[in-house]
Amino acid sequence: MGFFSRDIKTLNDLFIHALRAIYYAEKKIAKALPIIVDKASDNDLKDGLERHLDQTGIHIERLEKTFELLGVEAKTVNCPAIDGILDEADEISDDIDDDMVMDVALIAAAQAAQHYEITRYGTLVAWARELGRADCAELLEETLAEERAADHTLTNLAESRIKLRSAA
Amino acid sequence: MGFFSRDIKTLNDLFIHALRAIYYAEKKIAKALPIIVDKASDNDLKDGLERHLDQTGIHIERLEKTFELLGVEAKTVNCPAIDGILDEADEISDDIDDDMVMDVALIAAAQAAQHYEITRYGTLVAWARELGRADCAELLEETLAEERAADHTLTNLAESRIKLRSAA
Repeated sequence: MGFFSRDIKTLNDLFIHALRAIYYAEKKIAKALPIIVDKASDNDLKDGLERHLDQTGIHIERLEKTFELLGVEAKTVNCPAIDGILDEADEISDDIDDDMVMDVALIAAAQAAQHYEITRYGTLVAWARELGRADCAELLEETLAEERAADHTLTNLAESRIKLRSAA
Repeated sequence: MGFFSRDIKTLNDLFIHALRAIYYAEKKIAKALPIIVDKASDNDLKDGLERHLDQTGIHIERLEKTFELLGVEAKTVNCPAIDGILDEADEISDDIDDDMVMDVALIAAAQAAQHYEITRYGTLVAWARELGRADCAELLEETLAEERAADHTLTNLAESRIKLRSAA
């Protein structure tokens, strides 16, 4: 989208723009996750994050399928929100000097990214339905359900990681 | 927190750091909301955002009370996540040329900020309880409940704003 033009004139334009922003976000998350896995200590957390990396690949493919259904180019637009969320994860992990605290902070950072995706996919599903694109809505809903499940897994991991340490 | 030190050694340090980051986020949201209100067209949306601005003032006061309970200085640390979320709102609104589409995009942007806050307050409540600070957890939970209610209001507004236009 240009800086001096106003290219978004309809809800359909907004929908495609938002799809391209989450496409950017998913690709950026796919690059960030292996770095987060390296910083984590707990094996269950590492496994959970690696499973989420595999899922992220599927989410990227679903977005590509959505672009195909819409007959528009699968390309990215900037998503400063996910950049900021991942920068925050990076900054805080540089400041931490304890494995348990690092894991807890990484989980919180992953959840912030997760919730951003949940919000965006929720919005995209609503817009797809409003635009009469049930085919796209269904694909996006599959991803939304997986993002919600991943968030629950992270919540459980956060609880067990803190409790394990408290009991130690 | 310094760039070359590792100042976060305990869950309590992480908790205070996260409180200071959300304190920054709330203050930044308080500055951004009036600009978002100016860009909105729908009166219900403007009213809803203005009510949320009033609530944000209360959330800031509750954080100050939390710092007081903990006996630590009420100061901010950078929160690149909220910076990114608000930058995204700003960028997209520059590209939009239609009142209804602008309102729908502003609601989506406000919801992204809202969900970020919900995630963070959820995490803060869990950490406060783990640290045995039920007094802080209660204050943070009051804000969490209000953030969730504001998110529902935004969802309803988004639906009615799109439907109004579809019916026109």
